[in-house]
Amino acid sequence: MAGGGAAASALSSPWRALLQRALDANAHLKHSTFFQLATVGGGGRPANRTVVFRGFQEHCDKIQINTDARSNKIGEIKEWPLGEICWYFTDSWEQFRISGIIDVIDGSSPDPAKLQQREKAWFASSVKSRSQYLGQSPGVPVANDDHIKDVHIDPSAGPVDAYCLLTLDPEKVDYVNLKSNQRLMFTRTQEGVESSDWMAEKVSP
Amino acid sequence: MAGGGAAASALSSPWRALLQRALDANAHLKHSTFFQLATVGGGGRPANRTVVFRGFQEHCDKIQINTDARSNKIGEIKEWPLGEICWYFTDSWEQFRISGIIDVIDGSSPDPAKLQQREKAWFASSVKSRSQYLGQSPGVPVANDDHIKDVHIDPSAGPVDAYCLLTLDPEKVDYVNLKSNQRLMFTRTQEGVESSDWMAEKVSP
Repeated sequence: MAGGGAAASALSSPWRALLQRALDANAHLKHSTFFQLATVGGGGRPANRTVVFRGFQEHCDKIQINTDARSNKIGEIKEWPLGEICWYFTDSWEQFRISGIIDVIDGSSPDPAKLQQREKAWFASSVKSRSQYLGQSPGVPVANDDHIKDVHIDPSAGPVDAYCLLTLDPEKVDYVNLKSNQRLMFTRTQEGVESSDWMAEKVSP
Repeated sequence: MAGGGAAASALSSPWRALLQRALDANAHLKHSTFFQLATVGGGGRPANRTVVFRGFQEHCDKIQINTDARSNKIGEIKEWPLGEICWYFTDSWEQFRISGIIDVIDGSSPDPAKLQQREKAWFASSVKSRSQYLGQSPGVPVANDDHIKDVHIDPSAGPVDAYCLLTLDPEKVDYVNLKSNQRLMFTRTQEGVESSDWMAEKVSP
């Protein structure tokens, strides 16, 4: 499951090289690893929020995102696991729209490989970032400054209950470069298979 | 329809002041007027793309977006007119999530006031920006450099068929400031009424 057999995929996915180039070209900007993740909530309402790119899962193209298991989006994604990332690079004027299926990996996952993945992602994030999962549930009404509490976390302690790893498995990538005015559409030709091929097509911007 | 009776609304909407402050604080960045618009497409698939803020419709809170009537999103939005904007200000670390109903105003609108609104938005955009609607339909396969053509547009000519104005009428605004770690949730209390009141609540970030 951790994608052992998909090593070739990660190397061959043609949009990965473009994305890596954009990440390098915009690396001087803190927000270059931020993107917007759209999902569909209750009643078919679109939901959209900024999240942070936490790298790819090893040996595959799955995009990792850390989130709070207590946030609304978790229930919504479990119900309807489709997502589209919109990642705009403000310095190089490149946009990647990446759509795919999202996997919610919280502490209740029955899959040991997924739990290991979650633990790995937990330790890969900073202690400061981990400590936010000890705070109040997101989106809950607060009295003034109720939520500002000092929380301490043991750096060697594993993931807390509130920590949830999301992985988005790309099926389609719509790339546009606003400087060169070029647009490329990448479509995965073997959906649902870990190892996959991609088709690329040049389309009008 | 152009919102004559809603002048008080535009003045009193409490999130407008926060948004204006963010726009001012980030005005030195070209991308400060870019945001991501999420909608729901065929088969309930979330769609997400970067668009440009074209100001508010006069005397109300409706957010204006220019788009190409030939793009996929137009049919999708007509089918399912809900949208959520995610607007992240990279310098002040503020995020506005603005959800509401989207109105598609193309040349076929039977409402003279809406057509006037569309014409006004057309002339408010640059001649260069207008000329893009004379190019090839977006997303269509192209042979190499087929799409790079010189197009000329008469600056005094009204909107072309491919030009479409979208307006998003906010119903809920979720504001978070990542520097002060404060989050405010604004909810419109009189949905569907032009003139409206807003409720604000402080929630945990």
